[in-house]
Amino acid sequence: MIVYGKNVAKEMLKNNKKIEKLILQEGFNDKEINSLIENQKLPVEIWSKKDFSRFDKYSHQGIIMYIEDFKYTNLMDLLSEKSSLIVILDHLEDPHNLGAIIRTCEAAGVDGIIIPKDRSATVNATVIKTSAGATENVKIAQVVNLCQTIKKLKDNGYWIVGTDLLDSTDYRQIDYSGKIGLVIGSEGFGMSKSVRDLCDFVARIPMYGKINSLNASVATAIMIYEVIRSK
Amino acid sequence: MIVYGKNVAKEMLKNNKKIEKLILQEGFNDKEINSLIENQKLPVEIWSKKDFSRFDKYSHQGIIMYIEDFKYTNLMDLLSEKSSLIVILDHLEDPHNLGAIIRTCEAAGVDGIIIPKDRSATVNATVIKTSAGATENVKIAQVVNLCQTIKKLKDNGYWIVGTDLLDSTDYRQIDYSGKIGLVIGSEGFGMSKSVRDLCDFVARIPMYGKINSLNASVATAIMIYEVIRSK
Repeated sequence: MIVYGKNVAKEMLKNNKKIEKLILQEGFNDKEINSLIENQKLPVEIWSKKDFSRFDKYSHQGIIMYIEDFKYTNLMDLLSEKSSLIVILDHLEDPHNLGAIIRTCEAAGVDGIIIPKDRSATVNATVIKTSAGATENVKIAQVVNLCQTIKKLKDNGYWIVGTDLLDSTDYRQIDYSGKIGLVIGSEGFGMSKSVRDLCDFVARIPMYGKINSLNASVATAIMIYEVIRSK
Repeated sequence: MIVYGKNVAKEMLKNNKKIEKLILQEGFNDKEINSLIENQKLPVEIWSKKDFSRFDKYSHQGIIMYIEDFKYTNLMDLLSEKSSLIVILDHLEDPHNLGAIIRTCEAAGVDGIIIPKDRSATVNATVIKTSAGATENVKIAQVVNLCQTIKKLKDNGYWIVGTDLLDSTDYRQIDYSGKIGLVIGSEGFGMSKSVRDLCDFVARIPMYGKINSLNASVATAIMIYEVIRSK
């Protein structure tokens, strides 16, 4: 898998990620990255600006890495006794949203993220870049059946909190003191009915405008920080 | 100015925005947009897929409009007696962040946004698209001098709340009951020193990860909903 950009490179290098190939554009200069590369004695290829231009579809900032594909976590590893907040993404499609959510989850100390295998953004180069490299520090599980997975969470003592504008409770009125599985619906369609039916609570973030929709990653952030408040 | 995409088109049409030219890709079909166009008796050009491909650098969804340039609001019009929350962006550079923040401000009913004229993202096609058309419903003022403007807000009874990780107060411990001017720093550098010196409070959103940075639009959303909570 190809990844690019300074923030991502720093996270990969700091985490001693196995880097299969590292290419810098001639003239690349970043003190922190240079010293990380030096410490790890990594072989570096330096390409002319012209040769490097083949990567110009990425916002690469002069650095490209080939790394092994992203390793998802096993679902059961997410559900450890210490876990208390897991974010479940119900078929989000936009890699920028997925990356932004991973970044927020990392900063907020969320214990894990669950995404479905089909019809969902997966962890690719765009997601890693948008996450500012946070994919390295968050456990992400990919599951075949979201409803089965949510049932498993419930068996493990999780309360499932969905998000929707209709038939829902003000998000500030919900008790988040237990273990929480927070479900975020897709950009276009919200939560699927079968997932919604499994929710113990459905939360609504109040809105006061004409358009009345928050970006999925923004709504996720507001919900996560509301859950944290109760912990 | 060129704008594109279905959400944006809907907002422009609903708000009776003056549309100089409207181009659809052959086969374009969206019930709501088609009926809005019909109601307004707008002249439409339909281009073949091949001709339309010149717009493929935009995620256009088959619809392109030429509209008049974005009209900024006069600063004094933001500071009406009824206003109680204004968001001040201290040199944000990423148009996606600006668009996302405008969308959140619209949904949250924020009274206005202030951006500086220089070294800042301005309201362009990318911003309008990212905002999902919310630029139509939010007052945005562009000012020459951010510090002078903040002083004017203070003269008008606003408390200025900045955001920073250092020398700051947990964002949940601040009293937001008065009129609030919320300052968000730039992606790379945070708030400038001269702006920070004008803040009455500096808020910190607690983080628990290794990377410890929230995206600017995410941080803005969390702060805005915290201020709303106190209103």
